[in-house]
Amino acid sequence: MQTDHVNNMGDLLIHGLRDVAYAENQTLRILSKMAERATNEDLKETLQSHGGTTRKQIKRLALVFERLGQPFEPLGKSPAVDGLAVEAEQLRLLDKSVVDAAIIGTMHAMKQLAIARYSTLVSWARELGHTAIIRLLNTNLNDEKTANTRLNAIHLHRFVVRTGEPLKVAS
Amino acid sequence: MQTDHVNNMGDLLIHGLRDVAYAENQTLRILSKMAERATNEDLKETLQSHGGTTRKQIKRLALVFERLGQPFEPLGKSPAVDGLAVEAEQLRLLDKSVVDAAIIGTMHAMKQLAIARYSTLVSWARELGHTAIIRLLNTNLNDEKTANTRLNAIHLHRFVVRTGEPLKVAS
Repeated sequence: MQTDHVNNMGDLLIHGLRDVAYAENQTLRILSKMAERATNEDLKETLQSHGGTTRKQIKRLALVFERLGQPFEPLGKSPAVDGLAVEAEQLRLLDKSVVDAAIIGTMHAMKQLAIARYSTLVSWARELGHTAIIRLLNTNLNDEKTANTRLNAIHLHRFVVRTGEPLKVAS
Repeated sequence: MQTDHVNNMGDLLIHGLRDVAYAENQTLRILSKMAERATNEDLKETLQSHGGTTRKQIKRLALVFERLGQPFEPLGKSPAVDGLAVEAEQLRLLDKSVVDAAIIGTMHAMKQLAIARYSTLVSWARELGHTAIIRLLNTNLNDEKTANTRLNAIHLHRFVVRTGEPLKVAS
């Protein structure tokens, strides 16, 4: 909120879009660090392939700005996602045996935060009648939900391998 | 991760529980500031009553520590929720006409983050066979989901009042 003057719902939408654009850029950096640290090959591969998804999401956001006739300028920082970046950085302090579980935990937090942001932006865009951007934002929202489901599957697989017994994972 | 030595899944669970206990304490502070700033009476009331829910969640967490035979010591900080506290602080820079929408947005982010944390803790507790604490954690998880649904209802109501036309809100 430091760089934008937010006086009405239109400003709030633009500010939220600039915030989520910054968050996606941060996500790219975090994913790449996490992929280096992960020990499970499925998890490594999921983190790497989510990088590709994130790049597509950023392109969709650029299109959103274009349709609104606004310059595509991500914010320079955002405290919530920056906090998760710090958390991701601290993963290097953990014992190797728990690092995958901790990565999945932090990734869940990142994905749930992104789901909240895109849900809010879709609501605001609807409220303002910006129908041209709703489908783009909903596509990004669905990407986040899919990523969450894939993380649950890895958690499940990891447990099955260790104990031979499948486990219902809360999500 | 700065204060705990995390060498195995049991340590990771305790660290995650200490993290979420700190987050609930932070939530109490954030809710009270947001309730002061909100202009919509339903929103004010929801924020205040969620304070009561949060206090019950903290008591349940204290019971979780007791059942695990561990001292109830919330962490001293946690970067993700501290980032959301900064975001909540910045709400005072916004025009009054958008402050309720922005509060609902930040609250959604807080609730989605908490849903991620409790889901992860339930998974870890199951994996470790700590069945005595799963029901307590699931109750806190369900509180977060209920709070999210109530926020959506307020967003919807706010829109109906302004335009006379109901709107499906993404969540």
